[in-house]
Amino acid sequence: MTQPTATPAVKVKMGANTYGKADVRLFKVFRDQPPYEQRHEIKDVWVRVAMEGDFDAAHVSGDNTDLLATDTVRNTIYGLAVDGLTGSVEDFGKLLIRHFVQQGPKVKRAAAYFTEHQWGRMAAGGQEHDHAFVRQMPKHTAVVEGDGETFTVKSGIDELYILKTTQSGWEGYLKEQFTTLPETNDRILATVVNAIWEYAVESCDYDAVWQRVYQQLLTTFTDHYSPSMQNTLYRMGEAILTVCPEISRIHFSFPNRHHIRYNTERTGIENPNTVFHADAEPYGLIEGWVERA
Amino acid sequence: MTQPTATPAVKVKMGANTYGKADVRLFKVFRDQPPYEQRHEIKDVWVRVAMEGDFDAAHVSGDNTDLLATDTVRNTIYGLAVDGLTGSVEDFGKLLIRHFVQQGPKVKRAAAYFTEHQWGRMAAGGQEHDHAFVRQMPKHTAVVEGDGETFTVKSGIDELYILKTTQSGWEGYLKEQFTTLPETNDRILATVVNAIWEYAVESCDYDAVWQRVYQQLLTTFTDHYSPSMQNTLYRMGEAILTVCPEISRIHFSFPNRHHIRYNTERTGIENPNTVFHADAEPYGLIEGWVERA
Amino acid sequence: MTQPTATPAVKVKMGANTYGKADVRLFKVFRDQPPYEQRHEIKDVWVRVAMEGDFDAAHVSGDNTDLLATDTVRNTIYGLAVDGLTGSVEDFGKLLIRHFVQQGPKVKRAAAYFTEHQWGRMAAGGQEHDHAFVRQMPKHTAVVEGDGETFTVKSGIDELYILKTTQSGWEGYLKEQFTTLPETNDRILATVVNAIWEYAVESCDYDAVWQRVYQQLLTTFTDHYSPSMQNTLYRMGEAILTVCPEISRIHFSFPNRHHIRYNTERTGIENPNTVFHADAEPYGLIEGWVERA
Amino acid sequence: MTQPTATPAVKVKMGANTYGKADVRLFKVFRDQPPYEQRHEIKDVWVRVAMEGDFDAAHVSGDNTDLLATDTVRNTIYGLAVDGLTGSVEDFGKLLIRHFVQQGPKVKRAAAYFTEHQWGRMAAGGQEHDHAFVRQMPKHTAVVEGDGETFTVKSGIDELYILKTTQSGWEGYLKEQFTTLPETNDRILATVVNAIWEYAVESCDYDAVWQRVYQQLLTTFTDHYSPSMQNTLYRMGEAILTVCPEISRIHFSFPNRHHIRYNTERTGIENPNTVFHADAEPYGLIEGWVERA
Repeated sequence: MTQPTATPAVKVKMGANTYGKADVRLFKVFRDQPPYEQRHEIKDVWVRVAMEGDFDAAHVSGDNTDLLATDTVRNTIYGLAVDGLTGSVEDFGKLLIRHFVQQGPKVKRAAAYFTEHQWGRMAAGGQEHDHAFVRQMPKHTAVVEGDGETFTVKSGIDELYILKTTQSGWEGYLKEQFTTLPETNDRILATVVNAIWEYAVESCDYDAVWQRVYQQLLTTFTDHYSPSMQNTLYRMGEAILTVCPEISRIHFSFPNRHHIRYNTERTGIENPNTVFHADAEPYGLIEGWVERA
Repeated sequence: MTQPTATPAVKVKMGANTYGKADVRLFKVFRDQPPYEQRHEIKDVWVRVAMEGDFDAAHVSGDNTDLLATDTVRNTIYGLAVDGLTGSVEDFGKLLIRHFVQQGPKVKRAAAYFTEHQWGRMAAGGQEHDHAFVRQMPKHTAVVEGDGETFTVKSGIDELYILKTTQSGWEGYLKEQFTTLPETNDRILATVVNAIWEYAVESCDYDAVWQRVYQQLLTTFTDHYSPSMQNTLYRMGEAILTVCPEISRIHFSFPNRHHIRYNTERTGIENPNTVFHADAEPYGLIEGWVERA
Repeated sequence: MTQPTATPAVKVKMGANTYGKADVRLFKVFRDQPPYEQRHEIKDVWVRVAMEGDFDAAHVSGDNTDLLATDTVRNTIYGLAVDGLTGSVEDFGKLLIRHFVQQGPKVKRAAAYFTEHQWGRMAAGGQEHDHAFVRQMPKHTAVVEGDGETFTVKSGIDELYILKTTQSGWEGYLKEQFTTLPETNDRILATVVNAIWEYAVESCDYDAVWQRVYQQLLTTFTDHYSPSMQNTLYRMGEAILTVCPEISRIHFSFPNRHHIRYNTERTGIENPNTVFHADAEPYGLIEGWVERA
Repeated sequence: MTQPTATPAVKVKMGANTYGKADVRLFKVFRDQPPYEQRHEIKDVWVRVAMEGDFDAAHVSGDNTDLLATDTVRNTIYGLAVDGLTGSVEDFGKLLIRHFVQQGPKVKRAAAYFTEHQWGRMAAGGQEHDHAFVRQMPKHTAVVEGDGETFTVKSGIDELYILKTTQSGWEGYLKEQFTTLPETNDRILATVVNAIWEYAVESCDYDAVWQRVYQQLLTTFTDHYSPSMQNTLYRMGEAILTVCPEISRIHFSFPNRHHIRYNTERTGIENPNTVFHADAEPYGLIEGWVERA
């Protein structure tokens, strides 16, 4: 039933390519945990696996012989999670990659992407509950990539929305034709943190490092007057590299969620710097790596 | 340049109609608060105002004489917030409605809709910070409606995502032609709570009631074996009406976020009820009012 | 394993309630259609079914005996679609409701909600293709509700984003303390149409009516100078009621997607009314019914 | 008021970094166009600009002297659009980058990202309207990057949702432990196309190339039996490189939007391959470059 394709006048070839399964929603319960054998722990994570290799036959001539179906990839993720997901998603990623490189005859490398939802233990009446949880906003992201023997790991924080109502300003910047913004030494600073870091070590307690980064990030956000998002970015990186020797460098992406003092004076009402418009768009976007020197 | 409209063969008229401004993003800082005069509090709220009245002239003949521009509505919300937003959004809603009914010559009634984002005080080093905050997931919603003299108020909770890993089942339901679901007495129960309640009193401390509802909702979620979402809905309503005499009735909308035990056995791996697929769709949707008898 | 609930001091009862399945993604192919028996037609629709009845036993005492599982509801929607979805979603809705009222011993009424995605036939080389399609933006919505014998039907259009660059203004409105907006007789008018209509007849060719409403809506949008969104709303309703005798009344919800002339003059550049900021928020929201008089 | 930062025990430095303005919603009207001087054309585009350079002073010591405010970036985009946005967004991108490299004393390079919304001319009564438009789903994306003298340009198509109901299969793939999927030679093939291409030429008529890619993509989608998404990807790339000599290579990202034949047989109803579940997740994701050999 295949219709003939007109012979093309040009020579083409496949370049880099991958395939796999995305948006696999894996949920695991760890039952009967210490201290008193009734506590449950959970992992709630979206997984994407992408395999890389010599898939020319499939692309060029439609020969699927060496292709693992993406449905098989999904079954594998759930199947290996039964015994293999015991700690961090980063460690689980290494296990997945090892499997896919061994299992797929033409798979040379693979990557696993994770978005792990954070859940807080429910506290009803002040006491933490054994098996009830409330979803939190921030996410733990991770990317593990490798050939089955050596791996590169990146971890991150996403959707952490933080704000401070003072101790932030924006002054002394360049003035030219298109500059209309007034200077201020007391503004609201708000951002939705996206951070990604790389490791100086081959392996470590990834979940413990994540917690340390998360706590230091909040601490640094509050411990100084911020003359610019750029300076706060640098301070955060410096502090995190100090408390986390496992990390070689860290990248931040900071959308500057502007809160603009609303001009109520033109309608006869004095606004004593209390009423703001939380602007949805457009936003300043500040990005950068902080690295060991 | 207006082109003539063909005279219609039918008689038509305007029915119920409203207009106003939506998605006004109001942010207010309360500076120098007790206990030690350095603490900031914040209100972060999306506002919609809809005005109702005799706007036939505008609709039928394009006469705008008695219409307040929606841009004016926005200016008013920010302007009145300077002195008028001092406590709950519910109280601010009454103030807004009074204003619009007085100000718009043809405005007979108005409604104010609120989505208030919750922020937790940042705790760096175990101590709560004066002016730094982290965005939380749940929202405080409210609708205030009235003619400027009497008001109806509804309050709600939205986007509260809760889950428990055991103490929930689903058994004994009706079996017929299209029934294929197996029974279980140990499943994961998860939902994104949407609740709305009405008041038995004309006025009260709306923020205090909200907190009480929120806490009781979590408590009831954890305090029983759930034979169905329906029964848990009823128990929640009963408990909340018990601790909140201010509330006359409460409505819940519970999407049943199914977590389905993944069948790894067909690939030769035993799943000891630990690995689940967090299904994104479709979902059971259970809704209902619980009222004073 | 059920823990006892403390006897409440208040009397409560279940109020109105429903349950069912939401976000069922039903796709049907009609193969081998005329004119030449090779043409495929498709229906792509998200379905929600909500059942209403006497479910007190389930809510109050956790007795599921008379509850149809929501999973059964899903199976039913797909199963009945095989022979029962032959034309409009409105007609399919009546069939679903009849079934659920008969099948559920305690079901008294039911409602079916539809969001039908529109697909255009792909035209490669100017000729319409037999079985290839491109997704369009607007949606055909519908709600059918009833007791299995009589039904009320509502149909609608959603996510139809339209814009005109001239022939629209906003003048002569009320000026007061909070009014800062300048008047204009040449602005951009843009909105994302949401329309819902009710029928004056028990049954009709719902898909044909939808097409007629859609076409008339576009025609009226372009055939006059618009002095306000309100007046354009009325004109649309009047024109549609004229060409669609099947419709008794129609409701429009028009978010006014403001395009604001950007003030480049303060940076020394004259803007000859060509460069605009497409404002994302907040927006005017104009809503109303147009009815037969 | 700045609190001292503890001297860190580690040496750090800034790595690669950028900043700028994102989500600038630029809308331009071209009035009085040929053929008969009453026709309007529009450009509706979201812009992001990111500047790269030596911003160490700002990051490390909070010295903003050489920083252009992101608000200035926004003003510039609107200001330059008045005379400078006359054709493709790709050409406008080069103009923006030239400006920012000249204007910012420390700016060495810049990038401009575009998402251009497509609007179809409204056709009421079969005739194309002069100034009324309907928003389409697909988007024209572009990234221009450079030092102000030489540029690299990438263009793309996004959110183009296409589907065919037959002439697609998936057979002959690798079978192993985790494989449960049955083979088929008649399935529904659906994807949301994301394509990005690079140019073999320094400059060209970017909008004309975009149209040619778009048309060829649809043509190839329909002109063959698809044994796999991979093979269709390759065929699309080959055909586009054939008709577009301006393009050096093209990348596709194809989420495989699975439409799964619903198993109604277990409820006693035969499904003659007409009723499908449009699965929302998880999805196969196939990605790859097709390049000139």
